[in-house]
Amino acid sequence: MTAFSFSIAATDGRARTGTIHTPRGQIRTPAFMPVGTAATVKAMLPESVRATGADILLGNTYHLMLRPGAERVAKLGGLHRFMNWNRPILTDSGGFQVMSLSDLRKLTEDGVRFKSHVDGSEHFLSPERSMEIQRLLGSDIVMCFDECPALPATEEQVAQSMRMSMRWAERSREAFGDRPGHALFGIQQGGVTKELRAESAEALRAIGFDGYAIGGLAVGEGQEAMFGVLDYAPGMLPADRPRYLMGVGKPDDIVGAVQRGVDMMDCVLPSRSGRTGQAWTRRGQVNLKNARHADDPRPLDEDCACPACRGYSRAYLHHVYRAGEIIASMLLTWHNLHYFQELMDGLRTAIAAGRLEAFVADFHRLRAEGDIERL
Amino acid sequence: MTAFSFSIAATDGRARTGTIHTPRGQIRTPAFMPVGTAATVKAMLPESVRATGADILLGNTYHLMLRPGAERVAKLGGLHRFMNWNRPILTDSGGFQVMSLSDLRKLTEDGVRFKSHVDGSEHFLSPERSMEIQRLLGSDIVMCFDECPALPATEEQVAQSMRMSMRWAERSREAFGDRPGHALFGIQQGGVTKELRAESAEALRAIGFDGYAIGGLAVGEGQEAMFGVLDYAPGMLPADRPRYLMGVGKPDDIVGAVQRGVDMMDCVLPSRSGRTGQAWTRRGQVNLKNARHADDPRPLDEDCACPACRGYSRAYLHHVYRAGEIIASMLLTWHNLHYFQELMDGLRTAIAAGRLEAFVADFHRLRAEGDIERL
Repeated sequence: MTAFSFSIAATDGRARTGTIHTPRGQIRTPAFMPVGTAATVKAMLPESVRATGADILLGNTYHLMLRPGAERVAKLGGLHRFMNWNRPILTDSGGFQVMSLSDLRKLTEDGVRFKSHVDGSEHFLSPERSMEIQRLLGSDIVMCFDECPALPATEEQVAQSMRMSMRWAERSREAFGDRPGHALFGIQQGGVTKELRAESAEALRAIGFDGYAIGGLAVGEGQEAMFGVLDYAPGMLPADRPRYLMGVGKPDDIVGAVQRGVDMMDCVLPSRSGRTGQAWTRRGQVNLKNARHADDPRPLDEDCACPACRGYSRAYLHHVYRAGEIIASMLLTWHNLHYFQELMDGLRTAIAAGRLEAFVADFHRLRAEGDIERL
Repeated sequence: MTAFSFSIAATDGRARTGTIHTPRGQIRTPAFMPVGTAATVKAMLPESVRATGADILLGNTYHLMLRPGAERVAKLGGLHRFMNWNRPILTDSGGFQVMSLSDLRKLTEDGVRFKSHVDGSEHFLSPERSMEIQRLLGSDIVMCFDECPALPATEEQVAQSMRMSMRWAERSREAFGDRPGHALFGIQQGGVTKELRAESAEALRAIGFDGYAIGGLAVGEGQEAMFGVLDYAPGMLPADRPRYLMGVGKPDDIVGAVQRGVDMMDCVLPSRSGRTGQAWTRRGQVNLKNARHADDPRPLDEDCACPACRGYSRAYLHHVYRAGEIIASMLLTWHNLHYFQELMDGLRTAIAAGRLEAFVADFHRLRAEGDIERL
């Protein structure tokens, strides 16, 4: 069994590019992880997700524990086999979504008792149960069970929550045990307060993890506040371990995060946008719902090599979106995932060549010139 | 420009196998045509439809004239380019769906005035306008504009309707003109009355068409009545031209029709079933909604080579269907289209080898032994 490891091939400023090695394959960093909430990246076949350049998917513990159930997935051979994806999978801990989606019953030091949003059934999540579920799913990269306080929250609330998450991190580490080839990541909390971020990072380093996530961002605080934290938070975490910014984000969030030393990200944005007629391109966003596309014979993005741009006009994409056809979600999701992965590839290549600054300048220039809707 | 032609390679009883040659490619017969109603075979990319073995698609004049509009499709380069399918397309005339879907305003000898079911806008269809629309779409096989009376109908109503359809067939032929490489098919009507079918066939032969459809079946009369008509109707049509049974059908309908000399068929069944959790297999139907599949690690059909059967368990298909995931429609539609095309391939091979009877016996035996849900 190959061990889990991380090697940095090049740095450029605070940005890094490298490879995470896992028994199920390599993950090129900086990496963007498409989200496969319910054991599917919505509207995509897994081979198509791979074709966009994804090395790793994210699965949601909260959704999978409720339906189809972790024990069931385990009996069926694990999540990889279940969803027909044999490359690495990272699972979140369920902590974030139990707060945002469930009918929350009770949060204690022990864990969280809640009702399923699917069928109202009662469930319990704790560091120990989250580790068990992620093991049953067969996750390659397991996340500590943490709590992310809802905003707005006072600094005191954020501090209390972070300290409980750090105690939960220790319980997660203990429950995870020793699983060669599988990684456990700690999650830094502390909101937008530098001292709390430092305290959290200290606590995590003392426990020791295979990688470190920056949690509690991209929850409505805005890009400026997020970048403010990212100006110092990655530097508080061990330089030789992957740093994962959870739930980010828009292309310009991704670029800013990579510039600040982030190695991994995930977001539902490219797939969710695809299902609502929104396309992301180097020249900005295109809303295919818009009537101006009805007669437009041009592809979404003339320089894009994805199947949606190679095979179809904006007029077609507009038509199938308006007609409620499934192919609209299929093609636009594919395009968006392709664009996000192409962006990651551009970032990796630029960092390796030591020209990240020029790449980022080009990125912003194209978007500013952009207004692709009217081009 | 290659001419449109039909060559019969072998016959077995009344069944025939051969090839329709068109400038856009060959169509192996007996052929099953997946339906691409609104310029998409629902939940499938066109390259995937092709991968199932489809040589030709059907497009719906009624749907396409309303949205996105025939003139618009023409300006965008025609339906093939619009929907990214460069092989043959057959379009229906709009006659059937204007009766079943529109808010019908007025049917006269001239044509049909109706309101769109999409937006209530007013439209007119006639033999001349139907020919124009199908030309604008760029259809390879154009269908005459006809009327199919709603059931129940008296024999007199069926006769009157058939005779108007024959007058419309003449106007369609006139309006179609001479378009090398494109074919015009006449449509036999006459319900379940042999004399009316004979009269209709005579009228069509007198006009002269590139192929002949058997219309007015599969509209609720039942398989026995349909086979009753198919026992004589194909023989009334020119033996050297393709015979197309419109809107059929279930696998056993298809087998019975091929045995009776039908060369082409179309139906929404495999794609529509796919979106409602129904799978068709050689051993019968599987309802993936059913809770009995929740823990079943076996593929839908162990002998099927489609992506759904090669990559996924029944448990997975059940899960994604129940979770309302788009991939359920994608995989089950793919499976169903694959099975239908495999059935056609089996029929063609059996006819060529002169062993259709044995093939059909096997087909029915497997289904009878079947009950694949419980196997």
